[in-house]
Amino acid sequence: MRPNQIRTRLEAGETVVNAWLSIPSSYSAEGVGHSGVHSVTVDMQHGMLDFSDALPMLQAISATPATPLVRVPNLDPAQIMRLLDAGAYGVICPMISTPQQAAELVSACRYPPNGKRSFGPSRSLLYGGPDYVTKADETVMVIPMIETAEAVERIEDILAVDGIDLIYLGPNDLAFELDGHVGFPRPKSEMALVHVLDAANRHGVPAGIFCDSAEEARSRATAGFRFVTPGTDFAHLTRSMREAVGVLMDGADTEKPLAPAKHGY
Amino acid sequence: MRPNQIRTRLEAGETVVNAWLSIPSSYSAEGVGHSGVHSVTVDMQHGMLDFSDALPMLQAISATPATPLVRVPNLDPAQIMRLLDAGAYGVICPMISTPQQAAELVSACRYPPNGKRSFGPSRSLLYGGPDYVTKADETVMVIPMIETAEAVERIEDILAVDGIDLIYLGPNDLAFELDGHVGFPRPKSEMALVHVLDAANRHGVPAGIFCDSAEEARSRATAGFRFVTPGTDFAHLTRSMREAVGVLMDGADTEKPLAPAKHGY
Amino acid sequence: MRPNQIRTRLEAGETVVNAWLSIPSSYSAEGVGHSGVHSVTVDMQHGMLDFSDALPMLQAISATPATPLVRVPNLDPAQIMRLLDAGAYGVICPMISTPQQAAELVSACRYPPNGKRSFGPSRSLLYGGPDYVTKADETVMVIPMIETAEAVERIEDILAVDGIDLIYLGPNDLAFELDGHVGFPRPKSEMALVHVLDAANRHGVPAGIFCDSAEEARSRATAGFRFVTPGTDFAHLTRSMREAVGVLMDGADTEKPLAPAKHGY
Amino acid sequence: MRPNQIRTRLEAGETVVNAWLSIPSSYSAEGVGHSGVHSVTVDMQHGMLDFSDALPMLQAISATPATPLVRVPNLDPAQIMRLLDAGAYGVICPMISTPQQAAELVSACRYPPNGKRSFGPSRSLLYGGPDYVTKADETVMVIPMIETAEAVERIEDILAVDGIDLIYLGPNDLAFELDGHVGFPRPKSEMALVHVLDAANRHGVPAGIFCDSAEEARSRATAGFRFVTPGTDFAHLTRSMREAVGVLMDGADTEKPLAPAKHGY
Amino acid sequence: MRPNQIRTRLEAGETVVNAWLSIPSSYSAEGVGHSGVHSVTVDMQHGMLDFSDALPMLQAISATPATPLVRVPNLDPAQIMRLLDAGAYGVICPMISTPQQAAELVSACRYPPNGKRSFGPSRSLLYGGPDYVTKADETVMVIPMIETAEAVERIEDILAVDGIDLIYLGPNDLAFELDGHVGFPRPKSEMALVHVLDAANRHGVPAGIFCDSAEEARSRATAGFRFVTPGTDFAHLTRSMREAVGVLMDGADTEKPLAPAKHGY
Amino acid sequence: MRPNQIRTRLEAGETVVNAWLSIPSSYSAEGVGHSGVHSVTVDMQHGMLDFSDALPMLQAISATPATPLVRVPNLDPAQIMRLLDAGAYGVICPMISTPQQAAELVSACRYPPNGKRSFGPSRSLLYGGPDYVTKADETVMVIPMIETAEAVERIEDILAVDGIDLIYLGPNDLAFELDGHVGFPRPKSEMALVHVLDAANRHGVPAGIFCDSAEEARSRATAGFRFVTPGTDFAHLTRSMREAVGVLMDGADTEKPLAPAKHGY
Repeated sequence: MRPNQIRTRLEAGETVVNAWLSIPSSYSAEGVGHSGVHSVTVDMQHGMLDFSDALPMLQAISATPATPLVRVPNLDPAQIMRLLDAGAYGVICPMISTPQQAAELVSACRYPPNGKRSFGPSRSLLYGGPDYVTKADETVMVIPMIETAEAVERIEDILAVDGIDLIYLGPNDLAFELDGHVGFPRPKSEMALVHVLDAANRHGVPAGIFCDSAEEARSRATAGFRFVTPGTDFAHLTRSMREAVGVLMDGADTEKPLAPAKHGY
Repeated sequence: MRPNQIRTRLEAGETVVNAWLSIPSSYSAEGVGHSGVHSVTVDMQHGMLDFSDALPMLQAISATPATPLVRVPNLDPAQIMRLLDAGAYGVICPMISTPQQAAELVSACRYPPNGKRSFGPSRSLLYGGPDYVTKADETVMVIPMIETAEAVERIEDILAVDGIDLIYLGPNDLAFELDGHVGFPRPKSEMALVHVLDAANRHGVPAGIFCDSAEEARSRATAGFRFVTPGTDFAHLTRSMREAVGVLMDGADTEKPLAPAKHGY
Repeated sequence: MRPNQIRTRLEAGETVVNAWLSIPSSYSAEGVGHSGVHSVTVDMQHGMLDFSDALPMLQAISATPATPLVRVPNLDPAQIMRLLDAGAYGVICPMISTPQQAAELVSACRYPPNGKRSFGPSRSLLYGGPDYVTKADETVMVIPMIETAEAVERIEDILAVDGIDLIYLGPNDLAFELDGHVGFPRPKSEMALVHVLDAANRHGVPAGIFCDSAEEARSRATAGFRFVTPGTDFAHLTRSMREAVGVLMDGADTEKPLAPAKHGY
Repeated sequence: MRPNQIRTRLEAGETVVNAWLSIPSSYSAEGVGHSGVHSVTVDMQHGMLDFSDALPMLQAISATPATPLVRVPNLDPAQIMRLLDAGAYGVICPMISTPQQAAELVSACRYPPNGKRSFGPSRSLLYGGPDYVTKADETVMVIPMIETAEAVERIEDILAVDGIDLIYLGPNDLAFELDGHVGFPRPKSEMALVHVLDAANRHGVPAGIFCDSAEEARSRATAGFRFVTPGTDFAHLTRSMREAVGVLMDGADTEKPLAPAKHGY
Repeated sequence: MRPNQIRTRLEAGETVVNAWLSIPSSYSAEGVGHSGVHSVTVDMQHGMLDFSDALPMLQAISATPATPLVRVPNLDPAQIMRLLDAGAYGVICPMISTPQQAAELVSACRYPPNGKRSFGPSRSLLYGGPDYVTKADETVMVIPMIETAEAVERIEDILAVDGIDLIYLGPNDLAFELDGHVGFPRPKSEMALVHVLDAANRHGVPAGIFCDSAEEARSRATAGFRFVTPGTDFAHLTRSMREAVGVLMDGADTEKPLAPAKHGY
Repeated sequence: MRPNQIRTRLEAGETVVNAWLSIPSSYSAEGVGHSGVHSVTVDMQHGMLDFSDALPMLQAISATPATPLVRVPNLDPAQIMRLLDAGAYGVICPMISTPQQAAELVSACRYPPNGKRSFGPSRSLLYGGPDYVTKADETVMVIPMIETAEAVERIEDILAVDGIDLIYLGPNDLAFELDGHVGFPRPKSEMALVHVLDAANRHGVPAGIFCDSAEEARSRATAGFRFVTPGTDFAHLTRSMREAVGVLMDGADTEKPLAPAKHGY
């Protein structure tokens, strides 16, 4: 079976740079997969895409050096299984707040007797190889998102669940709940991140985190996060375009769009 | 009828910043349309998209302050008319090398008696307004690309064709033909660009140009080009992603992708 | 943030004419959005469309004067959040029968601390504007459907749930349950509609209703419904086509299709 | 092979009611196909659709009593052949102005030795039946559009071309060229229509015509046109919606959209 | 209403040959529908397809002699209702393990008072006919999958649920759970299949089963299964292709792909 | 740049097994690419697919060991260039009958000074690698189809055109023209095939051929064809399905579909 590079890098003590896709296009997906990142996550929660978009995106990522992941919209075992069948090598699941939820997530991603994943490997056979079914459980990664106050409180129990390969922190939702807003400063949620990272280290579970930029990702990596996402594809594209406009229209405030034209005729 | 901002800006002596779309997605199109650019061109020549992709992209651009254009793959009147019917406010047509071709392009974009555009305004009525048919000819822009040695030679005749609203220079194809390669330095094609710009100025026809970056676009604008494209969406996205990887993996050569994983199982 | 015209009209005491889309096309969506209606609902319950269809439809509606809504297939917070991220300015949710369900619907549509909507505004930033996150809760509308006997019984409790902006009555499902059939006469469900409208008026919550035609919608508006839907796009299209056939084939029974050709070769 | 109902009706002296599809949706296509019309034309010239839209639309029409046609964007034999392979039972081709063009159209639609259609029947085998290849030439209809001054002048020669099954008049493009505008009155083009219809009758070739409404179609049928199109799907849908708004907002001028909301935030 | 051929054949004591679609294409769907099978199931669980793929596939199947079914990914009433609205004439639902689940499945597929299906027949009116709503409950088939140890244990109770039209056995998932692997031999699950078939016979409920090949399906039919699926479309396609390679590259081991080329440049 | 396996095998004296795709699906494309074939051709002439289908199919093939080709619908340089930009490693072009057409085909596929391909490599950079532009001309294959009487007559001149990498024979169209039908026996076209193969051998240009089955392909390979296509994906799929029905319904005539159900309600 084709190895999971994320596992390989984490086991080797290396950091994983993970791209994040919200644009429903297999062309941009393939371009991002060739940008030097180690993994690419197709975001089905806040990304503007659906299963019929995700399939060709996963195929396109398969033509690049990067390992494909998905973030699912919620803890729905049927949807999770479909995306594994489509060739995702790991599932990032939002809003995991309890060990029961974490265990249900593990179960959705594992074949019997380790879990309740239904047999029907479909495209994952093409991507993983003919021995996919026997080796999937040791290859596919289960990645709960830690992004609620309850999850922070119960982090020890969640980390103790058998089969968690990586936890992924969602700092924005955590800030919203703990600090009451998303913008900085957000001292309570930052403290919670430190707490969760420390617990993960003690449990030997690597921790990842969503970041808004490469600079933030670098600082998170320095702080001990092993799997970092330097912003979404859409943010990279539009930020770069706004910067280009700024270069060309100097003095123009490119943070806000120009005064919009009247709509309608 | 909704005015064409490109015309408005050019008449006011202002520069037009034009975005270039090759990713087949209405979501990225809308994001780019809100980035501060004045126009957005859907590229059907080298872009990875077709009519069925272009339609929702043109609709999405209509929800932004930017004016929608298309670059068609070639001088095919039927395809040009379809894209005007779909709401494009101008057509950039590659490889126009003779006044006859330029005149045929004008004819494809204008209703009788100014041209041979077939009646059937479809979506352009929604975008332009109920008076679209009577005002289309004064609103829609005809934009031949000047990118061949022959076009440079015959530039005076091409510029004399009635109905040319803007010429758009394709420096890469011109360099390929004149200098024998695309990379710099490319003295012959650069000299040709100067020659064409000068002729355009004399004829009172504004000139635009495709650029690889905002910096190049700025320098072209300084040189007198009135409509500049600071690179494609795909280039912005992937360059920004590679830079992010560079920030995170310092020392890594992010110009080339990392050593690719073995393909297949 | 771009205002929600439905709120504006309701606050001004005006009736809202709402279109209903079941055809998966951004072109027909844009045409309907320009037909004079105040809002357009993308129907993901009985409409023949999915998220990947809804996205370009919401974009196309954004290019018209109408405000975009969605009807979701069920009370699934993850799906509801995705559609809000895609730019819907309100969510019509079927089969809300209890105050608990109504409160869960509110929670899915509101950011903390008003609810549990996850952060990741995506396209809604483009449609709503850069201040979307801070103003979304006062702009986005929460619209439970009242269409079960249980909902009628518990209407006072449902209307008392904080955050309900509008209730939307589903007379067909209500008739099916209360009268045992969908066709007229259906006295029990009609009485229930009166009862619910009266309760809504007492609670100061505007009430809307699905109708099969403009005539029915007019009569409902006269009866006090403030938000009326005069039939689906598909019904308008096919009824108009059948009428055209009737004009052309007089005497032909256009209510039933003509005798179908033998299928197969 | 499945018979072509248009031929059957024309041979029986009956009028054919033909629907016209510009909305890229197989759902609306199927609905229209069940509305009582005898044929349905997928419009690839002014319709907002492409081959990848046309395929499922042709399939959906195949599930209805109506016979599927296409209007192609231009006289491009490769595209025409693809649509015949996709199951169209006839091709309406715009802007046929000379007998040479008419003959080229016939050739594109006929297998050797009658023409140059390439072998590769694909889906047409499924729709037509296993004997498709041997019977296609007597079933598939070749339908040039007569819509230019030149075509009117050369109508006798065009009608004399072997293999023309029906001519289809495009009154709008003809009016644009002959009368200088599309709106009524348009005496020159109306006279030309009469002239062409008369010639067609003399040659024994049935004539069809595009109309804007059922009423116009009825009057055209009375005048001797045997194949009439009572407006596009998009026109039926949006006209019906505007009428509904008119019923609901009495006094509102529903011909023009309501004052559009400010676009942008 | 158009009759359900599966019911007709089962009532006549005939076996039903059912095709299984996992390729998201309406073209292959139509081809399979014309291959002589009696029904075609669009697989939304392990198939690589979504609602927006399923709709044109169901339409394409409607143009063939076969009756359309869907397999849904899970027991989600909202999704089940949407697919019935899209014209499926039966729903195969995985992982039904209890009579409560079976009853919930029945309820999702039946209109009041037999169940809780929401009114909004959409495309099913086109496929079934104008009397769809009154006859749907006696036409549409409810088909729980029996594929868990718990379902085997509770098979008598499940079969006793009113409204079960057919049970469909999933031998692979059953083997995974009971025998610990999917490959043969798998004595425990085979014994369970016998047990379930026997119970079904006693209850007068016909039993169907998924098979990997025509040969296996034949043997299952001989054993008493009345509805058999001889493998997926994808399996037929790729097996046939591998056999072709085997014929051409004799000696080559076509069970495994050839040594893959290095991926990347 | 990633090597072209077809060239490698041909240079090594090995036969190339080429698959043929007419189903518009990236999933079936990827499955076929893993079936052991050496190349996969996306058929845009008789295949039921368009550019927007071809793009994800080419991406999916890139994730397999097979080399991607396209068959274009006709000699349209703009379309050919787009497909090369999309990553096709060769272009099969139908109906090449003269050396002028062959030279135009070469020109469309080659960068200056070897041809007139426009610069804008897009996805081909991702598939081929960063040195794509400099090495494309020696990698991409130019493959005219020989399938007309005129081409057979002028085969020596066509083969003498510089830049032809392979010729591909279309026996069906040739039979249609020379023998007057497609079915066997077809002595004239068979003799022409022998003649063309002999000429190709003398010119040192390898010859390929479309076949209906693996058996025919084997016999063609034995006869000296170096690149053979054992039928389309659609043929493999539907033939295999019909055989399965034959196994299950013994005695049933599976060559013809079963008696079709009445269509319509």
